[in-house]
Order: sequence, then structure tokens, then C-alpha cells
Amino acid sequence: MYIEPRILKGFRDMLPDQETRRLHLIALLTKTFETFGFVPIDTPVLEYTEVLLGKGGGETDKQVYRFDDHGGRDVAMRFDLTVPFARYLAQHRHELYTPFRRYHVGKVFRGENTQRGRYREFVQCDMDIVGTSALSADLEIITLIDAAFGALGVSGVSIHIAHRGLFNRFLAHRGVSDQSETILRTVDKLRKIGEEETRRLLGEAVGDSADAILAFVSTRGDAPSVVAELERLSGGPSPESERMHAIVAATVELGLGERVVVDPSITRGLDYYTGIVFETFLAGRESIGSVCSGGRYDDLVSLYSKESLPGVGASVGLDRLIAALEEESPEVGAPASVLIVLQDEALVAHYHALAARLRTLGIATEVYPDAIKLARQFAFAERKRIPWALICGEEEHAQRVVNMRRLSDRSSHERISIEEAARLAGTELPS
Amino acid sequence: MYIEPRILKGFRDMLPDQETRRLHLIALLTKTFETFGFVPIDTPVLEYTEVLLGKGGGETDKQVYRFDDHGGRDVAMRFDLTVPFARYLAQHRHELYTPFRRYHVGKVFRGENTQRGRYREFVQCDMDIVGTSALSADLEIITLIDAAFGALGVSGVSIHIAHRGLFNRFLAHRGVSDQSETILRTVDKLRKIGEEETRRLLGEAVGDSADAILAFVSTRGDAPSVVAELERLSGGPSPESERMHAIVAATVELGLGERVVVDPSITRGLDYYTGIVFETFLAGRESIGSVCSGGRYDDLVSLYSKESLPGVGASVGLDRLIAALEEESPEVGAPASVLIVLQDEALVAHYHALAARLRTLGIATEVYPDAIKLARQFAFAERKRIPWALICGEEEHAQRVVNMRRLSDRSSHERISIEEAARLAGTELPS
Repeated sequence: MYIEPRILKGFRDMLPDQETRRLHLIALLTKTFETFGFVPIDTPVLEYTEVLLGKGGGETDKQVYRFDDHGGRDVAMRFDLTVPFARYLAQHRHELYTPFRRYHVGKVFRGENTQRGRYREFVQCDMDIVGTSALSADLEIITLIDAAFGALGVSGVSIHIAHRGLFNRFLAHRGVSDQSETILRTVDKLRKIGEEETRRLLGEAVGDSADAILAFVSTRGDAPSVVAELERLSGGPSPESERMHAIVAATVELGLGERVVVDPSITRGLDYYTGIVFETFLAGRESIGSVCSGGRYDDLVSLYSKESLPGVGASVGLDRLIAALEEESPEVGAPASVLIVLQDEALVAHYHALAARLRTLGIATEVYPDAIKLARQFAFAERKRIPWALICGEEEHAQRVVNMRRLSDRSSHERISIEEAARLAGTELPS
Repeated sequence: MYIEPRILKGFRDMLPDQETRRLHLIALLTKTFETFGFVPIDTPVLEYTEVLLGKGGGETDKQVYRFDDHGGRDVAMRFDLTVPFARYLAQHRHELYTPFRRYHVGKVFRGENTQRGRYREFVQCDMDIVGTSALSADLEIITLIDAAFGALGVSGVSIHIAHRGLFNRFLAHRGVSDQSETILRTVDKLRKIGEEETRRLLGEAVGDSADAILAFVSTRGDAPSVVAELERLSGGPSPESERMHAIVAATVELGLGERVVVDPSITRGLDYYTGIVFETFLAGRESIGSVCSGGRYDDLVSLYSKESLPGVGASVGLDRLIAALEEESPEVGAPASVLIVLQDEALVAHYHALAARLRTLGIATEVYPDAIKLARQFAFAERKRIPWALICGEEEHAQRVVNMRRLSDRSSHERISIEEAARLAGTELPS
């Protein structure tokens, strides 16, 4: 008789506290992006499949939500914000300027296997600087990630950086460039499958070079020494090693030295990166994986245009971050500071006038709409974590005063002005 | 050779200024909702078709983006935020409380004919109070709409209200209830097709009653008199006319009298409303239609549950509003206040340190990444409307000072501290 209220596997409803937390996080991130001069853009959720998949054929394609629309067009839901951004850059090139700094927060969709706790709909939060190959832009993305996590109040952040071009140079130096795809795919799984299994898989692909590759990606130590060692292993100084030296020196000068780790095991798998790559981990919560990843690419728009646009960018893993922060963050603040209880139905308009006044004074305020017992109205306030109840009967109305009741300890402040009520409530502002 | 960078008809890319404006508007609206104790929720873009369309079969169904997913499930993209909210309420009833005040901002999708300038993807911005039939909630939605447009700085707002139940009572009194669907559909088009055509269509349906119906919906005058006249035409006092009297009296008491118009031509067509209904118009821009519409419904969840949840809500027409405001609002502010030009590549880290310092002082700051001619860097700043350029060479660096250049008049402030630079830039903050 009724339709069962249910949602698709891999999709989520956000309850108020969850959504409040998510929006708060997004607001802190975008505010940080804006202090760096990044501007927001948006693109459609639905696009031509040809545009999103290109010549396609990869692993991603199978996960794409794809169908024919009413006009018989082959369409698909976006599976990331990078491909639409590339298309956007090619299409609006003449309306934009470079270097172009943009951020984009939006939902993306992947019909992935949900067994590993992955979602099929999730929010991505991307930032990129395109139109420049400069060191300064690499440095800026690193400082932006650092600033963003600082704004979130997250401690124990460590940004692991490597250089994909330097790794390629090392592979060429070892004479195993032709196996680079397999090597990248294998090394990318190192954290997951462990050193032994990685050595075995590498051995199958490149024989004797397996140990050398493992030694390269396992190089550890203070950042300048690691870069020096990678430089040596890759056949001596190169533009790539110079770039890494410069980045490391600059992050130290900027006081980020402690939070930046040169970690050659970061390769970002088969992604389109060509320069610096990075992943961000939270101390003690490394198991959830990188909460912010990205890197430098030679060209983003080659699929759509003969123009070339290099850039560097990162994407915040919002869901992982929320999962990580939920453990340590306190409960979400109350939606309002004051509940005006409905004591006398004849005063409904007056209650709304009092609410309007409190809001003007900066106090988020609700009016209880139904004439039910006060005890039940107080219970509603407590359920919603509203700290104060404002009570006003005919007599108080006539004398232009109100009574305030703190719900946590039932203490009362009687016959006070609405301004005093606002001051009281302001001392317990919802966070 | 290249894939043509293009998007689907009826879909839009948002350029930075457009998206900045949209996000700003959404932020002002949601901030207002929050001062009323409304909490945010979210639901999936993709749901079971059965859940979204129910027994379906209406006009909407043809517009729905619907397909079979990888698991062979019949799925559809949401076409509004109301149906998902009804499903959400039924599904999470035990995790929520009533009265439940929620807002929801999200994209919805309709494969409509795009000829009338309609979009196939657009953002809806809904707010509802459910679990109460009280007058107070009706009043609250009206004050919330008024407060929201106040926060947006929009003048000339007029909220047109009517009562669907009172209209039904009038139709019953005239003995034409059996034709109510045709009548509602026709009256809803009054603004579009004019009085003559409306009279003709009504005449076809209800003969002699056409004039009486037109007289009812054309009743004008000060709010209390209009309600009194509608009460008379519908056969005398009723709970519906009492509710309208009370709402009008309360809006007058709250100082909203000038902005609330009783307008019985508002019926909201075939929507599920049963009580108060309203549409919001902007003076001089009535032609764009209502920018915020809604009303009271007896029950939202009957499709999914035997429980009954009455409520009242409204939806802001964000795209129409943006179109209306674009004409009068000034251009979007600069993304940043200061551009630090790259004069000396050896000082890149220092430039980023200066930027970090300015940001700490509340000044949004960019660093130009490439070592190109200063004139071209200044041109970039002007293109992005950044008012100040900060210039710092080796000598300034050594003496811990900077030079600031106002791009509008090329005036300079030389050898000043970074704090002085922040003060200067703060006097021309981007809006």
C-alpha cells in the first residue's frame, strides 16, 4: 500500500547534524581558498558522455552513470571535477585569464563497488592553479593545503610530497621505463599490500631492478637529504631534482618544514601528473588514507583543444576528513539559542516580534508553534539542544518584560528586558 | 581530432562572477534560515524511480531523467526537493523531532522544454516546518521570507497570500467542486492568459459560475476587507477565513502589513497545498514571476507512511532571483585585495611569507607565480579587479619593507611595513 521509503545502496541521506558539520567544513575550506584569491566555478552534473569519457575505455568508464536522455543524447553524470574543469577551460578560454585559480565544490557519482565503505555519491572539493609551470604555484598549493587544515583546526597534518618526473627519470636511468605503468600501479599499492608483496610483483615485472625501485621509494630522512639521495639514484642533478630542492628550501623558509615530508613512495598511480605529487595524512589516522591529494600536470585540456595549459591542483577528501574529524570534534552546536514558548495563543504575533528583535540582536531564535504543555515545549528545546527558553504571558507582555529559563539547571531570570535576554543568551551562543 | 568542448542544452557552466554571486546569495539565505533555528539536510541526487514518482503518471514524469543503473535498478534524478523530503521524513521519523524546521539547497533536474528560457538543471532552496498545523508556523514562514529578502537587500518585495481551503469552500458553496481541478488549472494561468480568456475557459467548464469565480479571484483592497469579502463569498465565517483574518492581523502587528497582499488569484495550480498559499513578487519585476512560493499542506508523507505530517514551506526561485538582482547589483568584488608581484625569483618564498602575513591580517592576497614583465603582472591584477600591487625587491626585503601601488591611479606608498600595507589594502576591501 505504501511505497517503502528507502535510498539506493552507496547513497546517503544527511541528517541535520551531519549536514551542519559538512557545510561548516566546506565553509572553512572555501573561505581559506578565497583568502588566496581562488574563485568558485560550477559545471553541470550531467554532460555528454563523449566529453566526460573522451576516447575512454578505462576502469572509470564502467563506474559511470550513463544513459540516453529524452533527446536520444548519450549523457553521463560527472565522476570527478577534473574532467569537467578541463572541458570548461577549453570552452571558456577567452572569458578567463591565466594564471587561473579556481575552486569547485560539488557532488560526483561513481557506481563503484560499495563493499569497501565507498560511496557512490560524494562531495569533491577541488582547487587548481592553471596556466603556469612555476615553482611558486607548486609552493602555493602546499601552503594552501597547510592553511586549509589550519583553518579546520586539524593538528598532526603531514604533507607527503614527491616528484613524478624525478621518479620517471630514475626509471629511465635504470632502463625500465617501458615497464613504468606496471611499476607505478604496483608502487601505488605499497601501503596496502606491504613491502614483500610489492617486491614480488616488481620482481615479476622488472627482475633485478625490483630492489632498486623499492630502495628508491623507501628513501627516508630529513627532506634535503632525501632529495639529494633521489637525485643521486636518478643519475644526478636534473630540472626535476632542482625543483624539489627549491620546494623543500622554500617550505623550510616558510616554517612548514615540520609538516612537509619528502616521500618517494607517493606516485598517484596512473593519474595524469607529471611534476610534484602529494598526499596528506593526519597523525594517528594514517589508516583512513590521504585526506588531500594532487599534483602538477603538464596539460589538462589537450583532449579538447590544441592549446596547452599546465597547472597544479589538489582535491580534499571531504568524506574521509569528516570521518576523521568526527571522532575528535565535539557535538554540533544548537541550531538556536532561544526557544520562545507558546504560553498564550493570543500573543503569537508578540512572540514573533520578540523573536525578530532577538535575531536583530544576533541571537538565533525559534518560536514554538503549538499550544501544548510547557513541559513538552521545554523537552523539545532540550532535544534540539537549545539552551534557553523565553516565557512571556499577558502580564509580562503588558509590562514589556520577559522571563528567561536556562534549561540545563532550570534557573530563571524574571521580568527582564528583551535586550537583557539577548545578553544572557549571547553568553551561551551555539557554536 | 579534438573532442568539442560543449555542454548539454538547458545546462550551464557558471563563470567565476556568476558562481560568486550565486554562492553569496545562498549564504545570505541560509544564514537567515539559521537565525530562525532551521537546520540543513541533504538527500541523494539519484533515487529509486518508484520513490520519486510514486504511482506517478503526471506531467512531471515525462521530464524526469530516468534510467537503469549497473545493478538493473530503475533510478531517477530528483526533480524537486519536496518529494525526497517526504521520503526522508518517513524514513528517518524516529531520528527527528517535530516541529521539524529544515532547509535544503541543492540541484534538481527536469528535462523540460528549454524554449522558455528554463534550465534543465537548477538550484532549489527550500524551507519547511513540518509536524504542526498552527497559525504560528504559517506566520513564521511569511516572516522568514520577509527576513530573507531583507537580508538580500531586496526592496519592493510583496508577498501575495491566499488560502486554498477558502477557495475550495467557495467552490463548494457555488456547487462547482466537481470541476475544481479544471478551475484551479485555469485560474493559475490568469496572469498569463488574461481575464477574457480565463472567463471563456471557465465558462466552458462551469457556465454561469465563471463570472462569480473571476469576481472571487479578482477581489482587491486592503487585506482585512479582502478577507471579509472572501469570507462572505464563500458562505460566511469558517476555520479557513478565521485563519486568514488571524494571519492578516498578525502581519499588521509585526509591521509587515505593507508587504503582505491578500490576493485570491494565487492558487498554486494543482500542487498539494491545502491551506495558506503564497507567491512573492518584486516591484517593477513582476514579469519574472514569483521569486518565492509555497504554502501549507495537510500531509507530505502519506505516500510512504500511515503517519500524517502537516506542514508549511516555501521555495526560493534562485535563478529568477539572480536574474532580477543582476540588473541592479554592482559588479562582484575583487577576489583578492593585493597581488604580490614576482619581481625577483630568488624571493619567491619571501613573497609567500608576505602573503601569509597579509592573510593573517585579514587581507585576501595572491602571489603572481611567473617571472614576467611587471606591466603584464599589473594587467593581470586589473583584469581580476585586484586594487593593490605589492612590490618587493632585494633591497626592500633586506630592510623588511614593501612598496604598495594602487592600480587605479598608479599612486605609490613606498618602504612601508607589511602591517601598513595591510591597513592600506583594508581601506579598499573587496566586497
